[in-house]
Amino acid sequence: MTESDIRIAIAQAIEKVRKLNPLAPSVTNTVTQDFVANAQLAIGGSAAMVYLEDECAELAKNAPAFYINMGTAMPFYSETLPKTARALHENQTPWVLDPVGIGLSKLRTDILLEFKNFKPSIIRGNASEIIALAKLWKVIDETDGGNVKGVDSTEKVFEAKDSALALAKCTGGTVAVSGEEDLVTDGELTIGCAGGSEFFPKITGSGCALGGVMAIFAAVASPFIAALTATTMFNQAGYRAFGHSDAPASFKVKFLDELYKLTAKEVAENFRVIGSHEKVLNFGV
Amino acid sequence: MTESDIRIAIAQAIEKVRKLNPLAPSVTNTVTQDFVANAQLAIGGSAAMVYLEDECAELAKNAPAFYINMGTAMPFYSETLPKTARALHENQTPWVLDPVGIGLSKLRTDILLEFKNFKPSIIRGNASEIIALAKLWKVIDETDGGNVKGVDSTEKVFEAKDSALALAKCTGGTVAVSGEEDLVTDGELTIGCAGGSEFFPKITGSGCALGGVMAIFAAVASPFIAALTATTMFNQAGYRAFGHSDAPASFKVKFLDELYKLTAKEVAENFRVIGSHEKVLNFGV
Amino acid sequence: MTESDIRIAIAQAIEKVRKLNPLAPSVTNTVTQDFVANAQLAIGGSAAMVYLEDECAELAKNAPAFYINMGTAMPFYSETLPKTARALHENQTPWVLDPVGIGLSKLRTDILLEFKNFKPSIIRGNASEIIALAKLWKVIDETDGGNVKGVDSTEKVFEAKDSALALAKCTGGTVAVSGEEDLVTDGELTIGCAGGSEFFPKITGSGCALGGVMAIFAAVASPFIAALTATTMFNQAGYRAFGHSDAPASFKVKFLDELYKLTAKEVAENFRVIGSHEKVLNFGV
Repeated sequence: MTESDIRIAIAQAIEKVRKLNPLAPSVTNTVTQDFVANAQLAIGGSAAMVYLEDECAELAKNAPAFYINMGTAMPFYSETLPKTARALHENQTPWVLDPVGIGLSKLRTDILLEFKNFKPSIIRGNASEIIALAKLWKVIDETDGGNVKGVDSTEKVFEAKDSALALAKCTGGTVAVSGEEDLVTDGELTIGCAGGSEFFPKITGSGCALGGVMAIFAAVASPFIAALTATTMFNQAGYRAFGHSDAPASFKVKFLDELYKLTAKEVAENFRVIGSHEKVLNFGV
Repeated sequence: MTESDIRIAIAQAIEKVRKLNPLAPSVTNTVTQDFVANAQLAIGGSAAMVYLEDECAELAKNAPAFYINMGTAMPFYSETLPKTARALHENQTPWVLDPVGIGLSKLRTDILLEFKNFKPSIIRGNASEIIALAKLWKVIDETDGGNVKGVDSTEKVFEAKDSALALAKCTGGTVAVSGEEDLVTDGELTIGCAGGSEFFPKITGSGCALGGVMAIFAAVASPFIAALTATTMFNQAGYRAFGHSDAPASFKVKFLDELYKLTAKEVAENFRVIGSHEKVLNFGV
Repeated sequence: MTESDIRIAIAQAIEKVRKLNPLAPSVTNTVTQDFVANAQLAIGGSAAMVYLEDECAELAKNAPAFYINMGTAMPFYSETLPKTARALHENQTPWVLDPVGIGLSKLRTDILLEFKNFKPSIIRGNASEIIALAKLWKVIDETDGGNVKGVDSTEKVFEAKDSALALAKCTGGTVAVSGEEDLVTDGELTIGCAGGSEFFPKITGSGCALGGVMAIFAAVASPFIAALTATTMFNQAGYRAFGHSDAPASFKVKFLDELYKLTAKEVAENFRVIGSHEKVLNFGV
């Protein structure tokens, strides 16, 4: 894919979502459901949050994409999540996994281990989470990939590049690492994205909302373009909102407003790529 | 009831709520609880969200009204909800049912079937949900009432009129169908309401919040006046907020602000009725 | 402690949190999790909401502070909460208890009775809740301390002073009573705080957010200073936000913004103490 191909594909994904309003149901944490749903609606998608295993299995079969976020795991997740992921895999429904809280408990570890069989189309996390998942799935050596520090997100995005590549090769899908800079890879092509805002870490759920928006785009585009489109929309809307706010809560309102207002043309034109690391594609923007 | 009677009853309901701060506890979905509670507080009510069956039964007995919203059903709902609805019915506590997600799972279907015995005072949903509930309860023919499309809300409100009338006659209560236009019926008198904002479908939970606000008004007014007052307040606050915002997230903030600021006099005076369909009362406004 | 000592300690607590970004995990109600987390992030802390008993026990051992809020109790709380509180006590991890909904059900009563053994470092509630907990733990006479009215918060803060003192002596920690005025006591020193905004009761979760912020400060300061710092920050941010908003929803956004913007110097300098009741320290501000 050339830079031009990517810009065209991003614009098409945005236009398709606004036209088709695809639904991407979620099993996601109770903290940020409102933010996830409103971000999904802002870009033109539809939202539905579910917990029951038969509802998840039904939607996994019929919805065009799905989002699983591991935050605020509840006891019944051990029933719901593996069954949902299996149904997603069997029905070839694109799905996004956010492995937040990886390592916190045996229930999470067991579920995340099972997910390896069900090949999430997109895995989105911060650097620590991506490295931890790569280790859990044994796609990198225990000693590689930097130190895992639990739930924090202090590691630089590009320290997780090897883990991201290994995970993408394992699933045949895309991996997105979020941070001050963002990295999106399908195992072959790796793109670094700049932009965003220092207020993102000061509001809860921007990562969750990003995963939910990736799922919406995965309903109409390849996992790679879906992850890239969501990432660059968040960066551009965050950049604009930051220019109009001096504190995080008003930033959040403006960010959602900007997500809604961004046009496909603007997003495609302002797509910014960074290439400070070897093997990261540099479009020279 | 004449148009003048209705305007007076609406103004009285708003004034009573602001004076008495009635509590309407909710079992409601985890996505929009914050919005529901803040809408209930904005109009002068009190909010309490609960899940445990003995707490629900206790509150069903002692609270002046109650709200049950089926979204994000959890496994323990099969215990909590029927017991709560039974207690509401036995104690003649007015209650509002939002059958969101109808048809998604056997658990929901079983619970909604049981609810027929417990006669919700107000049923609020979009056109699809109202038609689906009327079919589930067998109060209309399977072949009547338009096509049900699951969780979507694409059907025109007035296509659900026969279903709404049949449900209202079955419960002896009121049915409110929400959409671009709104329809409120007690089985005898049917009123169509105009107003609102195109941003409502772009924020999650406006329907849930409307149900929660209906429950607050049901603590001080008849189900019919409660549903009508909540509906017209939402339409008027939405209309005002839309005039002061260019995107959904800032619209949501302003909408809640306007709910708080609307006076009883303003709401009663600006109450707008539409009558584009036969048998719908037209006040000629 | 002199007034000057307290001002210095407050400034230090704020600076430490902004420097160290301590994590205070929460088991808290599903309604206000977003508000709690965003308030914790606004002051410089980190947030993580959890439900599973082994995750809670793990975090109770390793996190520098913890927050337990009883709202929206779910069936599995009977497993999670006592185990978490025991782990907090055994590991001497400072923790904040918000006994919201006390008396609503046997599950809550049983859990709250057990908590007496695990000595919360800070108990935060409104007057009714503090009096109800003092009665439940039998640290005051049944006939003392005013009438308990369930979940309401209508009692004046200072009517709960005896209950707050008795609870503080029982736990060896601090008790904070929130209302139009606030009272913070460690059983020896009792401070009344003025400020705040009449919009706090019109938004859901300001009390929950206050408890969550106390937990963040408890990671870097004594329970007494933590409770006092959080209380005065809320009052000052609320006062500022109130000056820039005419309705509750925009107030909430501005309040979170002001929490983020307040400097340690400003908070310490503007710390206001009231002493309208005997035995309440009056710094004469």
